Amino acid sequence: MDATILSYFKENESRYLEELKQYLRIPSVSALTTHKSDMLECAKWTADSLRAAGMENVEIVETAGHPIVYADWMHAEGKPTILVYGHYDVQPAEPLELWNSQPFEPEVRDGKIYARGATDDKGQLFIHVKAVEAWLHTYGKLPVNIKFCIEGEEEITSPHLPPFLDSNKEKLSCDIVLISDGPMITAGQPSIEYGLRGVAGLEIYVQGANGDLHSGLFGGGVPNAIHALSEILSSLHAADGSVAVEGFYEGILPFSEEERLNFSMQPVDENQVRESLGLSALYGEEGYSFVERTTARPTLEITSVTGGFQGEGIKPIVPCQASAKIACRLVPPQLPDDILDKVERHVQNHCPSGVTVRVKKVLRGNPYMTPIDHPAVRSASDAYEKAYGKPAIFVRGGGSIPIVESFSRLLHASVVLMGFGLPDENLHAPNEHFDLGNFAKGLETVCYYLENVSKMNG
Amino acid sequence: MDATILSYFKENESRYLEELKQYLRIPSVSALTTHKSDMLECAKWTADSLRAAGMENVEIVETAGHPIVYADWMHAEGKPTILVYGHYDVQPAEPLELWNSQPFEPEVRDGKIYARGATDDKGQLFIHVKAVEAWLHTYGKLPVNIKFCIEGEEEITSPHLPPFLDSNKEKLSCDIVLISDGPMITAGQPSIEYGLRGVAGLEIYVQGANGDLHSGLFGGGVPNAIHALSEILSSLHAADGSVAVEGFYEGILPFSEEERLNFSMQPVDENQVRESLGLSALYGEEGYSFVERTTARPTLEITSVTGGFQGEGIKPIVPCQASAKIACRLVPPQLPDDILDKVERHVQNHCPSGVTVRVKKVLRGNPYMTPIDHPAVRSASDAYEKAYGKPAIFVRGGGSIPIVESFSRLLHASVVLMGFGLPDENLHAPNEHFDLGNFAKGLETVCYYLENVSKMNG
Repeated sequence: MDATILSYFKENESRYLEELKQYLRIPSVSALTTHKSDMLECAKWTADSLRAAGMENVEIVETAGHPIVYADWMHAEGKPTILVYGHYDVQPAEPLELWNSQPFEPEVRDGKIYARGATDDKGQLFIHVKAVEAWLHTYGKLPVNIKFCIEGEEEITSPHLPPFLDSNKEKLSCDIVLISDGPMITAGQPSIEYGLRGVAGLEIYVQGANGDLHSGLFGGGVPNAIHALSEILSSLHAADGSVAVEGFYEGILPFSEEERLNFSMQPVDENQVRESLGLSALYGEEGYSFVERTTARPTLEITSVTGGFQGEGIKPIVPCQASAKIACRLVPPQLPDDILDKVERHVQNHCPSGVTVRVKKVLRGNPYMTPIDHPAVRSASDAYEKAYGKPAIFVRGGGSIPIVESFSRLLHASVVLMGFGLPDENLHAPNEHFDLGNFAKGLETVCYYLENVSKMNG
Repeated sequence: MDATILSYFKENESRYLEELKQYLRIPSVSALTTHKSDMLECAKWTADSLRAAGMENVEIVETAGHPIVYADWMHAEGKPTILVYGHYDVQPAEPLELWNSQPFEPEVRDGKIYARGATDDKGQLFIHVKAVEAWLHTYGKLPVNIKFCIEGEEEITSPHLPPFLDSNKEKLSCDIVLISDGPMITAGQPSIEYGLRGVAGLEIYVQGANGDLHSGLFGGGVPNAIHALSEILSSLHAADGSVAVEGFYEGILPFSEEERLNFSMQPVDENQVRESLGLSALYGEEGYSFVERTTARPTLEITSVTGGFQGEGIKPIVPCQASAKIACRLVPPQLPDDILDKVERHVQNHCPSGVTVRVKKVLRGNPYMTPIDHPAVRSASDAYEKAYGKPAIFVRGGGSIPIVESFSRLLHASVVLMGFGLPDENLHAPNEHFDLGNFAKGLETVCYYLENVSKMNG
């Protein structure tokens, strides 16, 4: 790769912008059935732009919902394969009166393009399409193999994507899944989300006597289900804020120095977080920062508790039933089923005599991580550095993004989350916009990335 | 007192029975407005029977609800005054189809009289009226001063009795309040309930952040209101089952040997209790029996707990609010306000950092006890022994009977609960009945009691 491609970007800048505007004019709102024909039009537009970029085997794949657009270019023999994921659907634009320009009539103001879908995800997705176009136009071939998998249901929880992945593993097989569907950490500071927490959820049911009992007749003489549940729940954490379930942290590697350095570089002011939440103190596992606790360490939260008389006033009973719900956030190598077993064992071992406890396991999601020293991640950081003049910060996400986990699990590929949006670009809100500077830097970054990946072992 | 009065009972047995039947025929259902005229008729019938017995100053006192019947006989100068409390109202008779005879057409079968109100409370109350009649007829005067206070709203929680007591303290002043409105412990085994537990109720509100937080973004890094509440709740009891609130047991006297002996004489099989409740183990304060724990020791029960998302499924939040309700049962000398203060202090002291806790004090009822060596109680036990051939067992009630507490508090009198009913006489249920053997023994017992009390210092 050389300066030719950068000139190409420069020369075609206004055409790219016009095409992006066309893309953004299609009101592809997946949630509303009135937009069904817009969805189809948008899928076709996406397919056409991939074809125009030089991608091959372009397909609009019907699903039980909105179609998925597929394309590939597979002539870089012996080179790795990147699968680019994105989505052409957008959130509803309402409330319309809060927009300063029409949501589906894109307008450029102050170096930003305003429209529904600008940053989430059409603008970011379009970077990849146009980077491929530029490369193919400039060099006649790509340095790596590329596949596109672009869905139209991301904003409605992607119901048909995992079954599509599952039944097309061969077709979609790849080394890296590349996703640009989120923000970088702050303006000018690229970041790579290299891990997401998994989830394990369970419900706990404590049963005492075979019915609620009058506290005047039985109070003090029989087990109280809420007492018992409180004992169980309060046993789940140690005094140092760690989870007290035996084996909970088993196999989790300590953070490397580089990881901790990266965590500390995130612009998070713990005092400001605390104050904005109205808290006198934050909470968590001793020895870890707020960023580490909420993004890269596993946790166990009681999300709900219920027991006894739920009406107004005090009904003087000894309650016979009490229940709680728990959601754990997991990090590799924790797996939901193993954690659920361990929590269940803990709960049973800490159940006071006289009552019984039953555990219902209800929620499972694998955590995901591509280690920061993995070549697919290093290549991304290096690409950012070349385009932005500074390396990416490595961050981890405390939540779970089911599609990322699905890609990672079903395709056994390394997922790289390379965001070009900004945190304040109003995604899902009125006046959504996308910084055109990041659009331009994104084109460069993606090209550097393709080149970097081509040097990896395929 | 001599055999003459016993002969009088014998001679008048059938008349007494006929009169009781008349009394029971009046459907004095306080809960149903359709019985308003029956209530008035029943109050008049009660007043007439007191007048016929020789009582003086008989009055039907109007209240905002059903009237109260008052009468007195105050010519035993220098002798103690007994105030007999009872009620002429009854529970509704429904469901009528489950009765083997008409609820308001009394029928004697197998030595028992069947009718609504037979044991609760017309039959038991009538014992006192007829004992007075017999004594006055036989000896021309009573050995003690006697007042009657008979209400018509006991089955609807006595809304107008405490204000009546409060504004007639002089008129109702007495040494002993004598109540026969409950069962003896088993057939042939008289019992005296010499104490009732009081009650103190509070609500606990834990507040964490200023809103529920996404557990993917904040989980592990902020205080969880349910964790905090569970810690507070589980701190309320010690491992030995005692209440861990500082000063909770302050001033409570240990049981005397006689009290413990009496508790142990109650026909309660702990294994059978446990099995009937479907429990693998009972629970409670170490060193005390089930009877002691549930009737004579104070206790703290969590009656309700709520926090987090109450809908179906697991909503992965860090909840910002959680609350619980607590009901304590108290024994003398515990007082509700003091106990509520102590529990509040404990809750504040055990509140984990980061969250705040607020206590709302909502329920207060004094405990009540007449010590078993009090002459008013001894006299009752002795009277039972003379009539039944065996002394009464002293028992305590684990619940709170508000009117007993009102009498004790407002009139500063010793309350003596002298039951002549049996535990299986279906009060509040179809086929309510009263054992006529206990009616006869009751007449004797009450006469012995009047005589015994006349020997006390007035």
